[in-house]
Amino acid sequence: MTSTLSRVRAAYARIEAVDRPEIWIDLRPRPEAEAEAEAVDARVAAGERLPLAGRLLAVKGNIDVAGLPTTAGCPAYGYAPRADAPVVARLRAAGALVLGTTNLDQFATGLVGTRSPYGAVRGARDPRRISGGSSSGSAVAVALGIADLALGTDTAGSGRVPAAFNGIVGLKPTRGLVPTTGVVPACASIDCVTVFARTLPEAEEALAYMAAPPGHPVPARAPGPWRVAVPAPEQLGELDAGWDEAYAAAVGRVSAAGADVRTVDLGPFTEAAAMLYEGAFVAERYTAVGSFVDKLISEGGAGLDPTVAGIITRARDIPAHRLYADQARLAALRTRALVELGDADALLLPTAPGHPTIAEVAADPLVANARLGRFTNSTNLFGLAAVAVPADEVDGLPFGVMVVGPAFTDERLARIAGLLQPDTRLAVVGAHLSGQPLNPQLLALGARLDRTTTTAPVYRLHALRTDPPKPGLVHVGAGGAGIEAEIWRLPAEGLGRLLTTLPRPMALGSVELTDGTRVPGFLCEPSALAQCEDITSYGGWRAYLRDRPTTTP
Amino acid sequence: MTSTLSRVRAAYARIEAVDRPEIWIDLRPRPEAEAEAEAVDARVAAGERLPLAGRLLAVKGNIDVAGLPTTAGCPAYGYAPRADAPVVARLRAAGALVLGTTNLDQFATGLVGTRSPYGAVRGARDPRRISGGSSSGSAVAVALGIADLALGTDTAGSGRVPAAFNGIVGLKPTRGLVPTTGVVPACASIDCVTVFARTLPEAEEALAYMAAPPGHPVPARAPGPWRVAVPAPEQLGELDAGWDEAYAAAVGRVSAAGADVRTVDLGPFTEAAAMLYEGAFVAERYTAVGSFVDKLISEGGAGLDPTVAGIITRARDIPAHRLYADQARLAALRTRALVELGDADALLLPTAPGHPTIAEVAADPLVANARLGRFTNSTNLFGLAAVAVPADEVDGLPFGVMVVGPAFTDERLARIAGLLQPDTRLAVVGAHLSGQPLNPQLLALGARLDRTTTTAPVYRLHALRTDPPKPGLVHVGAGGAGIEAEIWRLPAEGLGRLLTTLPRPMALGSVELTDGTRVPGFLCEPSALAQCEDITSYGGWRAYLRDRPTTTP
Repeated sequence: MTSTLSRVRAAYARIEAVDRPEIWIDLRPRPEAEAEAEAVDARVAAGERLPLAGRLLAVKGNIDVAGLPTTAGCPAYGYAPRADAPVVARLRAAGALVLGTTNLDQFATGLVGTRSPYGAVRGARDPRRISGGSSSGSAVAVALGIADLALGTDTAGSGRVPAAFNGIVGLKPTRGLVPTTGVVPACASIDCVTVFARTLPEAEEALAYMAAPPGHPVPARAPGPWRVAVPAPEQLGELDAGWDEAYAAAVGRVSAAGADVRTVDLGPFTEAAAMLYEGAFVAERYTAVGSFVDKLISEGGAGLDPTVAGIITRARDIPAHRLYADQARLAALRTRALVELGDADALLLPTAPGHPTIAEVAADPLVANARLGRFTNSTNLFGLAAVAVPADEVDGLPFGVMVVGPAFTDERLARIAGLLQPDTRLAVVGAHLSGQPLNPQLLALGARLDRTTTTAPVYRLHALRTDPPKPGLVHVGAGGAGIEAEIWRLPAEGLGRLLTTLPRPMALGSVELTDGTRVPGFLCEPSALAQCEDITSYGGWRAYLRDRPTTTP
Repeated sequence: MTSTLSRVRAAYARIEAVDRPEIWIDLRPRPEAEAEAEAVDARVAAGERLPLAGRLLAVKGNIDVAGLPTTAGCPAYGYAPRADAPVVARLRAAGALVLGTTNLDQFATGLVGTRSPYGAVRGARDPRRISGGSSSGSAVAVALGIADLALGTDTAGSGRVPAAFNGIVGLKPTRGLVPTTGVVPACASIDCVTVFARTLPEAEEALAYMAAPPGHPVPARAPGPWRVAVPAPEQLGELDAGWDEAYAAAVGRVSAAGADVRTVDLGPFTEAAAMLYEGAFVAERYTAVGSFVDKLISEGGAGLDPTVAGIITRARDIPAHRLYADQARLAALRTRALVELGDADALLLPTAPGHPTIAEVAADPLVANARLGRFTNSTNLFGLAAVAVPADEVDGLPFGVMVVGPAFTDERLARIAGLLQPDTRLAVVGAHLSGQPLNPQLLALGARLDRTTTTAPVYRLHALRTDPPKPGLVHVGAGGAGIEAEIWRLPAEGLGRLLTTLPRPMALGSVELTDGTRVPGFLCEPSALAQCEDITSYGGWRAYLRDRPTTTP
């Protein structure tokens, strides 16, 4: 097992290597983190059960961590919390080690990651792009491999938009599952604490420790394959170039994985989304920190983000009668939305409509931000749960989707999100071909034959001296030939398991096919080729078995 | 996509190759199956949605399949069903193709697979061993790669014991989820229809189509890691050689995967198990087929299995007052059992205590059979759900475990069973080492550093001309050296995904370590080695990067 200490050392080395100081509001001093890591390792060595030992946690700067100020991204707001927020305490009790508090859009007001006196948080993959917010530093710390887990908060989409922009997983649990005690409120009635991780299982494991007793029953569902609702393409509105196609591909993957995909009207979701900043609900942000912001402005406004300050102070004058009216309108939209969902298990959407640059956001802060919440804003207003996952890359940058579903179906949503993982392919040229002795191995891993084809004409095939007899495929470039190959589709897990059982001298690598594509496939180690017969001229293993001279030379 | 027709052809070729005629009671004629396959392919080509198209289904001979006699393993009992049982109809409606009806312990009375006039079904892996029963033919058809899915039934363990003995998955759903209409009853009040598959996702996908509306709510659970109950080792009783250790290893894997393992008293489960055949409940078998068996005996008893006939006819004289008494005793045991489970999500047990040979069962049919049900018999009496999965191999034969849990937590149980899949390991020697440029790839796949070691002294290391620079590890045997390697642990899915992104000339194969073990690890294609510097003398990639001459030759 990795010791916590070595993991901490690697994290601080990585913090130095990536040079992204804007990720942190308060990074703990390395000696302090190392001392705590040694203490964790000692407890594990003494037999204590610490299931999250070795996992490093970053905490959004609006969540209390004992010993560090809680600033919510505003230095003047900072206070010294008396204790960890319960959600932090639970993860620590399970062995996670807190690295520090992370940068955010001030008072969690924004989806951009640039609204902070601690600096604009740059995207993990392309630093000219925004990180997304408001949980900006948390998402980038995970995406860059510094932290393993990070806490965020999500009111309008702050735990999901940054996941999408940085190619990681963001779980936004059902409100009520994770306590918000010790969290600076944005809109207190709908705020959720969220978790980021690089993989779904890691995020789900963390959530198991974050959630509060008592448990809730999971709503009934009618049996049958997963039912996934999607909007008609024209209801998605304008997306960044290539994102329509990436979204359609994600829908196709869910369908290919067996889900029943049906089209629903996105109208009530989009209309509710627009109410979050345009309507009266923004007044709740004034309830949370308005008097503090007013006072700070009267004292000169040092450290206030001007965009955030404008949003909050403008909310002071919203009359309560508008809030009543908006609440009634929201209730009607929610009813319409639930009718649309019907017995669907989830609504699959792009997490955001596009990924702007920092310069684009600076040019028009309010409009750029409002666009980002088109798909996420309605989730908490409707009391739903959501899971945001990476789905693809477009022009080398992450493209993310989310599944949104009924309260307390968080686990079910994570399973549906798991369907977005595409099957893998495998090229076989010998004993794993259909009807050959090792083919049942593939079947046992859930593999299905996709098609029969040939490799690109750059390979030679050798009869290895193995038991059972197998061929060795060797890339030679010029002087090679196309070799008969079967392409099998199997879950990534099956491909991983196959590799664990592979005996020397077999190997798996990238095999070029006659159509120019490349898929993982069988190769062999160089040393196996000595004194083996070159059987390339047969064109494939089956032809060799059929036509070879009856007495082997 | 595999066409259904090619899958059917492969299945009939495999049926011929494996030469296990006892699997089947009625195998459909190949031309008829091929014609149906072509029809399925045509419907898919015409755009019809048939999510199970290409999956071949075997159906236990006590479940109605239109066009084939339902025999329950007794030729004289055979009748021509008017229609498919609903569970068969549902799988067919989703595109599955029925290959035929399979052999079973007559009237589903037995856990051995030998009690049939159609022949004893031999174990898939070792034909001298029993297949387990009563769903014997179904399990072996799946294990040998003939069918992809197979239906069984489970009263005492008939859908789980054969899964364990043949190294496959057996889902025994909560009673009520899958209709038993069109199924010859064994004990009608507790019979369940089950499904076998080679992998959990395949079994779960099939169950989604088998289950009957309306859906049931999933019981609440308190948040936190999975809570898995296990008995004290001495309560397991006598197991086959090596099975104690294999079970302990399975418990260890669940614990290492983050589950909270607690010890409970297995007493009420074991006591209830003994009641299934020793108590009055066996009278329900007489209710089902007793008068038929009596009549057949009076006519000479042709085709009756003598052991089964004895069990059923002896049940005729059980007085009803004993049934009342047993029902009261069972209710008390069930209460004790549920108190033991408490808030545990599942009870983890070996599926069976051992795997006898056909000769051993023949020598003492009743005692050998009774032993097999020690862990499974109580599940349906208590109204619980269960998932049986392969956990390991002992002496080259499958060892299986099952998770048993509350009604309607079937999906949760499958996830817990999934924890039994061990993490995989990966040896890295170059750009994926900690702190090296490609290390974040491993982190993103959920990998954790296990330890730093060296390879066995049989490798040479070369500096490849790749970007970023990478080393190529080559097995040479004599003349090699130990090379610094890091061993990372990651989910099998992560290992599979890594392979899909691997560029030429890198490959993954089996790497020998200095302690004599072998793990999957990085190798390279032979053609990459031409004109590359041999850097073996540095002892590893990091030492080479640190100490190499500043101007590369």
